[in-house]
Amino acid sequence: MTSRAQAVLGGDRRAAARLLTLAEAGDPSIIGDLGALYRAGGRAQVLGVTGPPGAGKSTLVDLLIARYRAEGAKVAVLAVDPSSPTTQGAILGDRVRMGRHADDDGVLIRSMATRGELGGLAPAAGDAIIVLDAMGFDWIIVETVGVGQSEIDIVAYVDTIVLLQTADGGDLVQTIKAGVLEVADILVVNKADAPAADKVVRGLQEMVASMSRPDGWSPPVIRTEASADLGVEDLAAVVERFRAFRAADKSSRREVERRRLRARIVYLGDAAWRRSLRDASDLVGAEELDAVLDRRDDPHRLAERVAARLAHHSFGRNAPRRFIIS
Amino acid sequence: MTSRAQAVLGGDRRAAARLLTLAEAGDPSIIGDLGALYRAGGRAQVLGVTGPPGAGKSTLVDLLIARYRAEGAKVAVLAVDPSSPTTQGAILGDRVRMGRHADDDGVLIRSMATRGELGGLAPAAGDAIIVLDAMGFDWIIVETVGVGQSEIDIVAYVDTIVLLQTADGGDLVQTIKAGVLEVADILVVNKADAPAADKVVRGLQEMVASMSRPDGWSPPVIRTEASADLGVEDLAAVVERFRAFRAADKSSRREVERRRLRARIVYLGDAAWRRSLRDASDLVGAEELDAVLDRRDDPHRLAERVAARLAHHSFGRNAPRRFIIS
Repeated sequence: MTSRAQAVLGGDRRAAARLLTLAEAGDPSIIGDLGALYRAGGRAQVLGVTGPPGAGKSTLVDLLIARYRAEGAKVAVLAVDPSSPTTQGAILGDRVRMGRHADDDGVLIRSMATRGELGGLAPAAGDAIIVLDAMGFDWIIVETVGVGQSEIDIVAYVDTIVLLQTADGGDLVQTIKAGVLEVADILVVNKADAPAADKVVRGLQEMVASMSRPDGWSPPVIRTEASADLGVEDLAAVVERFRAFRAADKSSRREVERRRLRARIVYLGDAAWRRSLRDASDLVGAEELDAVLDRRDDPHRLAERVAARLAHHSFGRNAPRRFIIS
Repeated sequence: MTSRAQAVLGGDRRAAARLLTLAEAGDPSIIGDLGALYRAGGRAQVLGVTGPPGAGKSTLVDLLIARYRAEGAKVAVLAVDPSSPTTQGAILGDRVRMGRHADDDGVLIRSMATRGELGGLAPAAGDAIIVLDAMGFDWIIVETVGVGQSEIDIVAYVDTIVLLQTADGGDLVQTIKAGVLEVADILVVNKADAPAADKVVRGLQEMVASMSRPDGWSPPVIRTEASADLGVEDLAAVVERFRAFRAADKSSRREVERRRLRARIVYLGDAAWRRSLRDASDLVGAEELDAVLDRRDDPHRLAERVAARLAHHSFGRNAPRRFIIS
C-alpha cells in the first residue's frame, strides 16, 4: 500500500483531489497508487449515462443525484466530453452544476475532455473511477456525450449503461449509431411529452425486441421528462432491478465482467504503449531517417524496427519467456 | 518490387485505385507494396491546406486545381475530415467536386473520414500520399478540417502547410488553436472583403512576428477571396517561394524532414501496435481476469504484462539484441 493510496483510503480529501487530477491527466507516476486503491476497492455502483448532445443528460443526472442523496448515498459524477478539444465548455457547465451542490460533501462533480496525444478518455475515466470508489462514493455516474465509439468504450468501466434518447423529432436510426444500442442496459426516452415520443418509444421497443442478449436481459424503455422531474423514480427502480438480475446469475455476470475487463486491459496496454512513444525519438537514428528520406528505405520498414525496439525497451523486463518468438 | 507496385508505377489506374482504397482503409497487407512505391517515388509536391470549418478550404483548393491544371500539372486532392465519424458528408461533397472534373484524367479527388478503432487518419493519409505520388500526380493537396491535433499531425506528410482563416468575425485567439500557427508555413485570410479582414490580417502578422522559426522563414499572410477567384495567383507564388527557400538551405531542410519523418514513424509504430491489439484478447487468460475482478490483482499490472506479451508476440522477431533489457 502506497502512502498516497493510504491517505485517500483514510479519508484525506485533498490527497484524493490531487490523485484524481493526476488520474484524469493520465499521469503514469500514480499507477502504483491506482493499483493499491483498486485492490482495496469495488464498493461503488458505477452507472453510465450516455446519449446525443441536447438529450438532457445533465438534467437527468442532477435528478439522479437528488434521488440518491435523499437516501443518504454519496454521489460522484464524471462528465466526459470526447467531442470537445478543450475543457472550457465542460468546466463552465461544471461550475454551474457544482454551485448547486457546493455545500454538500456527499456530491462531487468532475469533468474530463479529450487528452490529445495520449488518446482515449476511457483509460483516464477508468482511473478516475478507481479514485472515486476509494473515496467512498456509493454511486459513480459517468456521463458521456454520445459520439459513437465513446459510448462503446465506456462500457468497460461501468456496471450499467443508460442510453438517453430525446423524443423531439429526429430520425431514430440516425441518432443511434451502430453498436450503441447493443451495449445499453436501459433505454430512456426523455422529453416524453413531445409529439413524437410514442413513435420513438415504439421504435426503440422494436429494436430491442429484435436483439437477443446472451445474458437474457431485455432492456426496458423508460419515459422521463427530466425538466419536470418525471420518471426518475422509475429509472432508479429499473437500475436496481438490473443490478439484482445481474447478481442472480453469477456465471453470466462473470462472463460480462471478463469481457469488459479484457477491453479495459487492451486500452491500458495501448496507453502504456503511447507513453513509450513519446520518448520514441531516441530510438530512431539520423542515418536511419536519412535512408528513408533518400528513398533507400521506407517508413513502414523503419516503423516496424522502431516498434520492435520500443517493445523491448518498454516491456522487455516483464516478458515471460514463453511469449518470446525467436 | 511487388507486382501490385509494378502495376501502379506502370500506369494501371484500376490497380492504383484499388491500392488507394486499401491504403485509406489502413490494410496491413499492402505494407510491402507501399514500401516499394515509396522507395520509387518522391516527385510530387505535397501541399497541406487546413483551417476551421467554413473557412472556404474547398473553394480555395478548387482554384488551386484550376491554377495548376492550367500549367498542365496533374493534381490529386485528399480531403481529410477527422471530425466526421461517417464519410457521408464528405462523399456527398466529393461527388459534387468530382463531377466538375469528371472528364479530366489529370485530377483526382478522394476523401477520408475517421477510421474508428484503428485510430488516426494521419498514417492512412500518409499511405494514400505514397500511392498518389506513385500514380504520377505533380501536386497532392491534403485538405484537412482544422480541429487542433489533426493539423499538427498532418505536418509529418506534407512539404508546405497553408493555414486558412476566415475574416468574417470571430475571435482570432479562439479560432487558432495552440500549436497550429507554429506549423503553418503560409497564412491565408479568406473572405478578404469582410469588414474585419484588416484586423484579422494585422492580428496574424503580429502573431507571426512574435514567433521565430529555427529555419528563419517568416510565414507570409496572404489575402484571398476564394469565391471571387482573387489572391490565388499570390498564393501559388508564395508556395513556390517557400519551396525555393527550403531547397536553398539543404541542411535546415534535412532537419525539418527528419523531424517530420520521426513523427511519422511514431504514428506508424502506433498503428502497428493497434493492429496487434485487435487480437490481444488471446493473450489474456480467464484466471488472470478473475484475479483482477476479485481484487487480488489490478488492471494496470495486468495491462503491463499483456503489453509485454504483445510486444514480444508482435515484434519479437525484429528486435535487435542490443535493445533487449533483461
